[in-house]
Amino acid sequence: MLLVSYVREDEVRRLGVQDQDAVLDVAALAAAHGVPLPGLGEAPASVREAIEAGPELLVRLRELLAAPLPDGVRLPLSAVRLRAPLRPGKVVGVGLNYTEHVAESARTLDTDRELPQRPVLFSKPATAVTGPGEPIWHNGELTAQLDWECELAVVIGKTARRVRPEDALDHVFGYSIVNDISARDQRRGGQWFFSKGQDSYAPLGPAVRTADTVPDPQNLDLLLKVNGEVKQKGNTRHMLFRIPELIADISSGMTLEPGDVIATGSPAGVGASFTPQQFLTPGDVVEASIESIGTLRNPVVDAREAGAERG
Amino acid sequence: MLLVSYVREDEVRRLGVQDQDAVLDVAALAAAHGVPLPGLGEAPASVREAIEAGPELLVRLRELLAAPLPDGVRLPLSAVRLRAPLRPGKVVGVGLNYTEHVAESARTLDTDRELPQRPVLFSKPATAVTGPGEPIWHNGELTAQLDWECELAVVIGKTARRVRPEDALDHVFGYSIVNDISARDQRRGGQWFFSKGQDSYAPLGPAVRTADTVPDPQNLDLLLKVNGEVKQKGNTRHMLFRIPELIADISSGMTLEPGDVIATGSPAGVGASFTPQQFLTPGDVVEASIESIGTLRNPVVDAREAGAERG
Repeated sequence: MLLVSYVREDEVRRLGVQDQDAVLDVAALAAAHGVPLPGLGEAPASVREAIEAGPELLVRLRELLAAPLPDGVRLPLSAVRLRAPLRPGKVVGVGLNYTEHVAESARTLDTDRELPQRPVLFSKPATAVTGPGEPIWHNGELTAQLDWECELAVVIGKTARRVRPEDALDHVFGYSIVNDISARDQRRGGQWFFSKGQDSYAPLGPAVRTADTVPDPQNLDLLLKVNGEVKQKGNTRHMLFRIPELIADISSGMTLEPGDVIATGSPAGVGASFTPQQFLTPGDVVEASIESIGTLRNPVVDAREAGAERG
Repeated sequence: MLLVSYVREDEVRRLGVQDQDAVLDVAALAAAHGVPLPGLGEAPASVREAIEAGPELLVRLRELLAAPLPDGVRLPLSAVRLRAPLRPGKVVGVGLNYTEHVAESARTLDTDRELPQRPVLFSKPATAVTGPGEPIWHNGELTAQLDWECELAVVIGKTARRVRPEDALDHVFGYSIVNDISARDQRRGGQWFFSKGQDSYAPLGPAVRTADTVPDPQNLDLLLKVNGEVKQKGNTRHMLFRIPELIADISSGMTLEPGDVIATGSPAGVGASFTPQQFLTPGDVVEASIESIGTLRNPVVDAREAGAERG
């Protein structure tokens, strides 16, 4: 099941199920059937509520979706705007998690040539998260090296603390796409937080595919295009540290909470790796796609011209 | 005014005002006077609610405190347990922000000898925050280099986005203490997130002193003791990047929200700087004190023996 957060003209955020080129309004579905959905309030606003409701919700939702669809539940995708599926508590990023990206980073970004022995962890704050279609802000006063990274996002569903790898996937609610945007020239004393954590540097979405409908999260094609041109092409099977190891490693010291997101690392083909280097500038459009989840499309917009809009 | 979050035997979190060796229950105070406090619900559970209530709350609260205290409002400090004043949205840390600490770090922690040209920013997740009196967890499987850093915590009161230094202090709600705990041996590819972001690595408190009662946040003595022995002694006047510059720099790219915290950096005297190096082990007690705010005292406890307690 693909879950989304969306708005209509009234700008009210709602939880929906994406079905091909339509969105089904979850609250309207429950209301039409005259049954409350377990763990869910009357006006769920995002995928977070679905996570917090617990697994019974998905069971019940699937039953309702199997019945004939009541009127007023199905909206054409073109009539809504998707938002970021949720605001995570924290976004834990994993650096250098694909072999070829380790090599290209060593060549162009002063990172180690050796494969990391342990996951290289960093973070992005919730304020960096933005939704599908929303701008990636380019501030020319701060960066001339705005770069992309298409990554599988693991959305945590159940608190994980000192979890063993063999139990780790039980803690996953679903999977989404995160574009791990960096201002390569804003690393501070080597730390990536400001270079990767600025507002709009974590486009997330367009949907969260629930884990039960992802038979093998380690076999998903990744693709990133800039202005229609392919820049990254990979598959999650090439991760150095696989999802269960990542969850076990992070949760060995740091509790993962429902709604937290792990950005599992980028395959090769980031802008800094090209000769000459390629970076994002206002007017560009970035599309990050992952098999069975969708395409996360964001325009790059000049932050200096958009002061008012950013409010 | 010193604001605290505390619990009594019922373990319900409440917002209080600390007055010497007593805590005044804010909800009981309002109830006794028969007036709702502006912007505050009936059962405020932490300093976050006071931040979100807006400045009018503090004006009104000060009026009530000037009147004779009704019965049942004043509790001896010994009869309550203080908690972390709030759960921040994000904690932005500043590395290498005191000259002598830059020197000792270069000597012992492979950081640059040069003074940083721009603030060195990193982060800790909200899950790292713990309260006064609560354990700093020492996990011998993960670290043999658990270290301390006594830092002034700036608590944001008003959304800050591209704020000029001269306006920056308008966005500060108050000041607290954060002990920036690090597992020096858990840096990952040079990144500090996992070494500084583990559960309990951000003791915060014991109180938040509202900004109106801090005449000069750049003239506060800092002191840190381990088992009663002084390890750090500094003053916030020696910060390389002062608070207004930090807020301006961070908010140039990253929105600071009410309840976010900036950990403004540590003076010299961290454990790694001693010869031989000194690190925290179970049984130690760390006390971080800042003038006019208080003392944040935390025992170091073996995480492996405390599995059950940590849940």
